[in-house]
Amino acid sequence: MYELYYWPEIPGRGELVRIVLEDAGVAYDDVGRRDPEGVADALDGVLAPYAFALPVLRAGEVVVAQSALIARFVGEHHGLAPRGEAARLACATVALTLADLVSEVHDTHHPLSVELTYERQRDAARTRARAFREHRLPKFLAYLERMLTDHWLVANTCSYADLMTFQVIEGLRYAFPHAMAAVRARRVFALHDRVAARPRLAAYLASERRLPFSEAGIFRHYPELDAPARRTRHESSTMRS
Amino acid sequence: MYELYYWPEIPGRGELVRIVLEDAGVAYDDVGRRDPEGVADALDGVLAPYAFALPVLRAGEVVVAQSALIARFVGEHHGLAPRGEAARLACATVALTLADLVSEVHDTHHPLSVELTYERQRDAARTRARAFREHRLPKFLAYLERMLTDHWLVANTCSYADLMTFQVIEGLRYAFPHAMAAVRARRVFALHDRVAARPRLAAYLASERRLPFSEAGIFRHYPELDAPARRTRHESSTMRS
Repeated sequence: MYELYYWPEIPGRGELVRIVLEDAGVAYDDVGRRDPEGVADALDGVLAPYAFALPVLRAGEVVVAQSALIARFVGEHHGLAPRGEAARLACATVALTLADLVSEVHDTHHPLSVELTYERQRDAARTRARAFREHRLPKFLAYLERMLTDHWLVANTCSYADLMTFQVIEGLRYAFPHAMAAVRARRVFALHDRVAARPRLAAYLASERRLPFSEAGIFRHYPELDAPARRTRHESSTMRS
Repeated sequence: MYELYYWPEIPGRGELVRIVLEDAGVAYDDVGRRDPEGVADALDGVLAPYAFALPVLRAGEVVVAQSALIARFVGEHHGLAPRGEAARLACATVALTLADLVSEVHDTHHPLSVELTYERQRDAARTRARAFREHRLPKFLAYLERMLTDHWLVANTCSYADLMTFQVIEGLRYAFPHAMAAVRARRVFALHDRVAARPRLAAYLASERRLPFSEAGIFRHYPELDAPARRTRHESSTMRS
């Protein structure tokens, strides 16, 4: 039995693990959702020696942290990973690059310090968010496009990296709707839709277990950090005529 | 035969891999050091489909990026990793947390954008560096102290995570000499010294292959980003008397 430890209020990095558990169809104890005090108690108790940050997954004597590593652990044990060392390492590389992308998204609203509120670092956040939208976001999406085979990342089987990509695209569209509407990543967006249609994941997404994004999480929507739309609907239709 | 691709001018994240290869005593082609054009050529050629960022390691059909993942790959193949799934995952968790620490060090001098010079984001860097010194650095070092067994991290064998810790402590002492002199992490510093004394690593460190830190790299020494010394030598001796 897996025990997942993550803050109960936000999807955050915990969701990168949860969607792999859900798509795999394995039972897990979502400790924070079951018991709001459970995570804080564990951090002072059973997890105290090991934990630097959440999420943490426990499975018997295994205690593993870092969202991309947990996703890989679950994926490789439950048929959501490619076979063969080369493909497994390529998949792990993509997952870690996705985790870096998530950290960079976090830093768009907290570029100076996690100890300060967003409002106290808003000017710096504007600069960081602009650099993210203009340079980093297109670079990350172009990389994912290159790592796509016909249908899935790295190899011809749906993996934890594909599931993570779905969640990252969801978060990016929540946080940066204008920038995401302007960026080109046709095949990655098709991958997102392919993942969303997987039966077990679709059932999870429609359930009460699925948490919404909010301005308490990692993917936050602050209009001042998003780009204005490049084209209005009118300009777009003019261009087509 | 391994091929390591990294920028030839700086130790950077490439050094986190290089020290594992050196301590393991395995032959590798350090492409950038052998041929200054080699890395740029590879990024436009053989690595173009796979690479998001360097370092990248090639070994036959394996192409793996992300410093902590490459270090794990080399370590697990060459006796520099614990045995058993639980210890291997714990070791991988520590390595990824070290990679996060390195990214946070990078962002102390580039909190707003990698597209801007340090001088254009110095004020933001002061704020970010202070938060790093006061909150993040002690938190990371306390975590490493907790993950130490008698001699090594996680298990009673020297691993790639121990080697990475050595390099990170070296970098932190270069970048933040005052802050590092004031922070308490006695057992981690003893680990650093234990790693430095390993024969193959000591020979490498004394060789011309070892690159110095500089203000072009990830660990940079800008006095304004380091803390003032908490105690002068005089005050310290006064306290002892």
